[in-house]
Amino acid sequence: LRVGFPEVIYCAGKTVEQCAAIASHMVAGGTDNILMTRASREVYDAVAALYPWAHYHEAARICHVLKGKIAESERPIAVVAAGTSDLPVAEEAAVTAWAMGQKVERIYDVGVAGLHRLLAQMPKLREAKCLVVVAGMEGALPSVVAGLVEAPVIAVPTSVGYGANFGGLSALLTMINSCASGISVVNIDNGFGGGYQAALIGRMAEPK
Amino acid sequence: LRVGFPEVIYCAGKTVEQCAAIASHMVAGGTDNILMTRASREVYDAVAALYPWAHYHEAARICHVLKGKIAESERPIAVVAAGTSDLPVAEEAAVTAWAMGQKVERIYDVGVAGLHRLLAQMPKLREAKCLVVVAGMEGALPSVVAGLVEAPVIAVPTSVGYGANFGGLSALLTMINSCASGISVVNIDNGFGGGYQAALIGRMAEPK
Amino acid sequence: LRVGFPEVIYCAGKTVEQCAAIASHMVAGGTDNILMTRASREVYDAVAALYPWAHYHEAARICHVLKGKIAESERPIAVVAAGTSDLPVAEEAAVTAWAMGQKVERIYDVGVAGLHRLLAQMPKLREAKCLVVVAGMEGALPSVVAGLVEAPVIAVPTSVGYGANFGGLSALLTMINSCASGISVVNIDNGFGGGYQAALIGRMAEPK
Amino acid sequence: LRVGFPEVIYCAGKTVEQCAAIASHMVAGGTDNILMTRASREVYDAVAALYPWAHYHEAARICHVLKGKIAESERPIAVVAAGTSDLPVAEEAAVTAWAMGQKVERIYDVGVAGLHRLLAQMPKLREAKCLVVVAGMEGALPSVVAGLVEAPVIAVPTSVGYGANFGGLSALLTMINSCASGISVVNIDNGFGGGYQAALIGRMAEPK
Amino acid sequence: LRVGFPEVIYCAGKTVEQCAAIASHMVAGGTDNILMTRASREVYDAVAALYPWAHYHEAARICHVLKGKIAESERPIAVVAAGTSDLPVAEEAAVTAWAMGQKVERIYDVGVAGLHRLLAQMPKLREAKCLVVVAGMEGALPSVVAGLVEAPVIAVPTSVGYGANFGGLSALLTMINSCASGISVVNIDNGFGGGYQAALIGRMAEPK
Amino acid sequence: LRVGFPEVIYCAGKTVEQCAAIASHMVAGGTDNILMTRASREVYDAVAALYPWAHYHEAARICHVLKGKIAESERPIAVVAAGTSDLPVAEEAAVTAWAMGQKVERIYDVGVAGLHRLLAQMPKLREAKCLVVVAGMEGALPSVVAGLVEAPVIAVPTSVGYGANFGGLSALLTMINSCASGISVVNIDNGFGGGYQAALIGRMAEPK
Amino acid sequence: LRVGFPEVIYCAGKTVEQCAAIASHMVAGGTDNILMTRASREVYDAVAALYPWAHYHEAARICHVLKGKIAESERPIAVVAAGTSDLPVAEEAAVTAWAMGQKVERIYDVGVAGLHRLLAQMPKLREAKCLVVVAGMEGALPSVVAGLVEAPVIAVPTSVGYGANFGGLSALLTMINSCASGISVVNIDNGFGGGYQAALIGRMAEPK
Amino acid sequence: LRVGFPEVIYCAGKTVEQCAAIASHMVAGGTDNILMTRASREVYDAVAALYPWAHYHEAARICHVLKGKIAESERPIAVVAAGTSDLPVAEEAAVTAWAMGQKVERIYDVGVAGLHRLLAQMPKLREAKCLVVVAGMEGALPSVVAGLVEAPVIAVPTSVGYGANFGGLSALLTMINSCASGISVVNIDNGFGGGYQAALIGRMAEPK
Ligand SMILES: Nc1ncnc2c1ncn2[C@@H]1O[C@H](COP(=O)(O)O)[C@@H](O)[C@H]1O
Ligand SMILES: Nc1ncnc2c1ncn2[C@@H]1O[C@H](COP(=O)(O)O)[C@@H](O)[C@H]1O
Ligand SMILES: Nc1ncnc2c1ncn2[C@@H]1O[C@H](COP(=O)(O)O)[C@@H](O)[C@H]1O
Ligand SMILES: Nc1ncnc2c1ncn2[C@@H]1O[C@H](COP(=O)(O)O)[C@@H](O)[C@H]1O
Ligand SMILES: [Mg+2]
Ligand SMILES: [Mg+2]
Ligand SMILES: [Mg+2]
Ligand SMILES: [Mg+2]
Ligand SMILES: [Mg+2]
Ligand SMILES: [Mg+2]
Ligand SMILES: [Mg+2]
Ligand SMILES: [Mg+2]
Repeated sequence: LRVGFPEVIYCAGKTVEQCAAIASHMVAGGTDNILMTRASREVYDAVAALYPWAHYHEAARICHVLKGKIAESERPIAVVAAGTSDLPVAEEAAVTAWAMGQKVERIYDVGVAGLHRLLAQMPKLREAKCLVVVAGMEGALPSVVAGLVEAPVIAVPTSVGYGANFGGLSALLTMINSCASGISVVNIDNGFGGGYQAALIGRMAEPK
Repeated sequence: LRVGFPEVIYCAGKTVEQCAAIASHMVAGGTDNILMTRASREVYDAVAALYPWAHYHEAARICHVLKGKIAESERPIAVVAAGTSDLPVAEEAAVTAWAMGQKVERIYDVGVAGLHRLLAQMPKLREAKCLVVVAGMEGALPSVVAGLVEAPVIAVPTSVGYGANFGGLSALLTMINSCASGISVVNIDNGFGGGYQAALIGRMAEPK
Repeated sequence: LRVGFPEVIYCAGKTVEQCAAIASHMVAGGTDNILMTRASREVYDAVAALYPWAHYHEAARICHVLKGKIAESERPIAVVAAGTSDLPVAEEAAVTAWAMGQKVERIYDVGVAGLHRLLAQMPKLREAKCLVVVAGMEGALPSVVAGLVEAPVIAVPTSVGYGANFGGLSALLTMINSCASGISVVNIDNGFGGGYQAALIGRMAEPK
Repeated sequence: LRVGFPEVIYCAGKTVEQCAAIASHMVAGGTDNILMTRASREVYDAVAALYPWAHYHEAARICHVLKGKIAESERPIAVVAAGTSDLPVAEEAAVTAWAMGQKVERIYDVGVAGLHRLLAQMPKLREAKCLVVVAGMEGALPSVVAGLVEAPVIAVPTSVGYGANFGGLSALLTMINSCASGISVVNIDNGFGGGYQAALIGRMAEPK
Repeated sequence: LRVGFPEVIYCAGKTVEQCAAIASHMVAGGTDNILMTRASREVYDAVAALYPWAHYHEAARICHVLKGKIAESERPIAVVAAGTSDLPVAEEAAVTAWAMGQKVERIYDVGVAGLHRLLAQMPKLREAKCLVVVAGMEGALPSVVAGLVEAPVIAVPTSVGYGANFGGLSALLTMINSCASGISVVNIDNGFGGGYQAALIGRMAEPK
Repeated sequence: LRVGFPEVIYCAGKTVEQCAAIASHMVAGGTDNILMTRASREVYDAVAALYPWAHYHEAARICHVLKGKIAESERPIAVVAAGTSDLPVAEEAAVTAWAMGQKVERIYDVGVAGLHRLLAQMPKLREAKCLVVVAGMEGALPSVVAGLVEAPVIAVPTSVGYGANFGGLSALLTMINSCASGISVVNIDNGFGGGYQAALIGRMAEPK
Repeated sequence: LRVGFPEVIYCAGKTVEQCAAIASHMVAGGTDNILMTRASREVYDAVAALYPWAHYHEAARICHVLKGKIAESERPIAVVAAGTSDLPVAEEAAVTAWAMGQKVERIYDVGVAGLHRLLAQMPKLREAKCLVVVAGMEGALPSVVAGLVEAPVIAVPTSVGYGANFGGLSALLTMINSCASGISVVNIDNGFGGGYQAALIGRMAEPK
Repeated sequence: LRVGFPEVIYCAGKTVEQCAAIASHMVAGGTDNILMTRASREVYDAVAALYPWAHYHEAARICHVLKGKIAESERPIAVVAAGTSDLPVAEEAAVTAWAMGQKVERIYDVGVAGLHRLLAQMPKLREAKCLVVVAGMEGALPSVVAGLVEAPVIAVPTSVGYGANFGGLSALLTMINSCASGISVVNIDNGFGGGYQAALIGRMAEPK
């Protein structure tokens, strides 16, 4: 049974009880695909007690209440990330896009300061119909990737860094000012937003 | 004869001679679709003297050296804009997307402070496979539009405004912080970038 | 017995003892309407031990030491808010305005990304003689509301959001740059200030 | 014959022809009260050639196409300003409010560094049902005025100053952070916005 | 016995042991007047165990190791402050100036939103040979005070406030942009710096 | 005949006629010492036509309408500056202080990158009862000077520089964050303010 | 005859006469190598009239008054730049380094959005003992280059760009936040500073 | 046995286990020189349990897993720092450079406000082939040092300070705007980056 598009609960700033209550309300209303982002393990425990089929994507900090099966797209979208500290954001993007029906190719540990590792991934990069590119610190990765592929790139700046990175502002400015064509940008650390936009784009490319 | 994807010349900060020379070089190299953005009428005059089939999109500040015919897509992308001061940026987006093979629906004069005008355009908004939404001042239009449609929205902040708009920074922040899903953002006044990204996305939706 | 205008104690950064002492001092001086904003439950407990008629508005974080009865205005002011995270600020505004003698209509959960919910409230929005509109993230709600009503709008940006929202600066800039007429803005998270200004305005509209 | 509320044309960034054309269109549509803000003398000349009853408020940079008579309110609103450089913004506020039917009391040259001049105006300040307070540089005037009156204050920061005033940002921050109650703020140099909001408020206080 | 100018230890970011060690070193070197700023009670306890004549100015967060007697100046400097939250900074200034030999007049609770309280202090304000004026939030007090006196004003912005005060930046900008003559500014929360500068100035006014 | 303290006209943003009119008004009122800052040569010409005893300090951009004689103080204040581009600001400070009765010692061309030139001026630096230190670019000079002298230092940041100097903000922040004691700061390019504050301080040191 | 290190005149903000006078003074003092940066053609004309051996590096905006011959280093430093708009800054760096005795290899038109052009230059990049990398817009080039070479990289951000590039701040932040090791940064558009630092470094690598 | 260049692990934001695992992996791969920066004592304990030859540089927060011996360079590089709060950053630079084969001269406690202490170190400053200069607060030290030496200076701003230092931004801007030649800058608190760059530069100066 193919499930519908997910309903989303943003758990940050809500209590465990509030999160579980909203989820319950949705399940009661018949929703079969609930994405709970920025969910702590406590949120997951509370939800799993009610709906044992809930699943916790720890790295993505997503609790997924899924009844049925996601139908994966034919062509993948790619989620590309530089450092290990960027992985929570990248995983949030990846799980979001997958929960929206996209096959996801993860391409991690390919920062611009070690170009050979990125270039070694050229086939995978070129195969993707859309790419989410996640980077912190100086945030240069989306520019480089967009120059290597023809598909649209959704850039996600992260708050990873220190000193003059100003909570991700530096990476955001880098991406917004990119000299490469085919890049658009979402908010700092907004892995969900990047994955969502990529999935909206990706499903256009599927045979109807 | 269907032309290829355009080559692009960004004319800002280049002399008329430099612009014409780059265009000549491209024509000599066989390029049949050249988009000269931020082009003054002087640039157009110089180019048209060489290639009489050049066309000047005045509102978009684009000189287009096109030999052959653009094959328009079946489903349109929409370019949505609030005020008249935002039109140069909106037109730059529209002409860019069209030069890349997209049918373009223009939806102008639909600012958020006069919601009825926007709502009157619902059918056109919903028909678009992708939307470029251009807005200055407080930049709230993309949030509202993204809530009304399911297609991806590319938001273009403009530098239009005064006082605390800080050259478009205010509109950029508004769009980057949007609470609506399905929005990604390009640089301030970057109509070209918005139209380009929309066209990359739009061509996926076409039957191959 | 109709009480006077409230005296206000801003409890943030004061100890429980200091808050209670200031309140005692006011009661001793004959004040019958004391609004203690940003009050913790501990503050309320200490005050209620002395003056059992004190009441705690938990969501608003206001402890109200009221002896007598508020005379409600004929026409209401409206307090409008988008997300649940904005409710503490909205409630602070609502309780403040009410304690100053205004009938208050709460219109919550009407963010711009779900316009139909806002439009469904048109009658209530239009009935209000003044509106306090509270919003975080991109802060677009006041612009949209001001376009729908003729009464003055007091906009209250909140610090709700993440990434490039910079503690509410993004919402503040949005509101200050609004292209709608009839909006003025108070400080980030300043529900008290918004409710106070709305009540000053609202009492003008009452028959004398 | 009492005229209606004005329609407004913001002339900045529009050509003389565009401004005159929009005005003509409105007159043709029967509008009897047109406020053209940020209008140059050239705009006025073009409009006056068509409608000799047009009037130019030079200091306010407003061209007013008024057919009929404004009915002045009973109680005045006050427009308060510090330095002579702030006068264009103050006048824009004053003419706007008056064109909307408010009697306007101008209280100029009352900066906070010369408090006696301000205090000498106490009777006029207290008589006003609403006050627009305009100030540049450090922007402290609204805080002081709001402490002296009970009516609501609309604060208008101006870009007047130099050095670290950052185009009026300094004055805007001062006003937004005011410790006085009963202040709300509009955009930098937005005299129109301040006058408009004050008039919306002021007409509530009139006997119906 | 008249003591010399104090040596100063800035205790923030140092351990109790480090603070005590530096003080010991100074005492051993014969220093009779040691000002330990930003000192916790723990620092005081450690120092008092060694030098029982140490004194703790709690509100100022200063531990003073003074052996001998301060000779007070004839004419006072004034330390002026608005709100109770600004008192730690004001007291730091006052104790610093006093430890440098100045008679200090404290004038507290005189914010600009309640001008009558400030004006009631005119004689004391005018008597001072130099004034340290401390204010947070919008930071307007130094402008008003400088307009009332002829002596030089040292303005100290504090980080007190919320919302758009940005850790005191708002107050700093207000003071730097003051339209009053005779004001100069020190760093945010730098009560020590304000008191020190005032004392340097004040001792010039003393008969030699 | 000893003249009084100067009255000041800030000419920036005023027409030649306005400046001359204000000066005439003051002369008519008996003012014998008028300092017209930011005065163009045209302003001087207009004023000198009326009052031939007017004098133009070109480097300082000050037109001085002085009738009588300034009585110079015994001990000098020093005006210290780094580069030649800072001289207009330094001269504005110097002329202002002198017009207020202070003997002024100019110490120019002593930037921190060439320390020997600064150290060669030690006797003059130490002799001054107060110092105005003017610097652009990184603005480090006041910190170094304050470490070398015991008198109070008034720091004046200038907008001289390029790149990341942000119109003098960089120098302002440097000076406000100085680790040296005895520094306070005025606005960017505010030579008048620096000279005025120094003169207020300096006259205290004079025998009465 | 080997010349010494150049003396430098920064011509921006100086008149032609001032520039020529300073140069004359240096020549008179025996300086055989004078670098006049930010020099207009008018400056060059004035200087060449006096010293016909002066040479104008137009692209670099440098007038070079050189008597004798520069002794070029054995190993080159490289000056790397992305777009044509960055060339004035790159040339300023190149001419500066060369005038200080360094052999200079120019590697231009190698932006990160077209990686193949950069990679095609690997041999030249690796041969350099030190690299000056100049980039505007998002400023990502230094990070990529530093990952490809082992020599130190001096990064020079330029003000080239538009929208949210804030006069080069975006590129500066990118470079300062670089995740690659072996990068240090100079001021925006400071080609001179980059070339100077590279030459200081480069001469260490020469056999003595 | 001379060891190779260190491999670097940046421990901030990694668990003790992750740090130890990466180190183990490197040791297993034959790396004899591992620099673990921002390492807590817990990280050291875990690593030392595995490799008893690991050493903890507490002040530098560096855990060094070194098997063999560093070959020190002939000429030293200098690490210069102002206050004690800057020492962790200075030590990170010093240990990094030393682990890369450089002899390191530490010159501490030489802030610009006490110039004599700096000048007393002239021989050591001049002997260094390259200098890392670390400073917080106003960050003026690199400008002064660069004026005293001919070798290149790598400036490291620190986040030490309070008030308007904005986490080190003030010191960063000071250094980037330095009027001295021969300075380049790394990120705030990036002692590793400063030491690394200095070592890259320093090894050029060694006889091969
Ligand atoms: N209006 C525009 N705004 C921003 N970027 C543009 C614009 N037009 C063209 N570009 C970009 O500039 C590139 C051409 O730059 P250039 O090599 O300077 O001609 C194109 O490939 C686009 O990526
Ligand atoms: N929540 C609030 N936010 C901002 N200002 C407030 C708030 N509540 C009270 N105030 C202001 O704080 C004043 C009381 O402050 P205090 O004297 O510290 O108790 C009131 O008169 C109001 O102007
Ligand atoms: N160069 C200057 N920079 C800043 N403020 C100045 C300057 N010259 C004069 N002022 C101030 O401006 C006031 C006169 O302003 P105005 O009334 O516009 O002539 C004086 O009293 C000073 O406080
Ligand atoms: N203290 C530090 N500050 C900044 N960057 C560092 C620091 N220590 C190490 N790095 C960088 O971080 C890289 C290792 O990062 P990671 O792969 O996360 O272990 C090194 O190659 C350096 O480029
Ligand atoms: Mg691409
Ligand atoms: Mg949508
Ligand atoms: Mg309205
Ligand atoms: Mg009031
Ligand atoms: Mg005064
Ligand atoms: Mg000193
Ligand atoms: Mg490298
Ligand atoms: Mg040097």
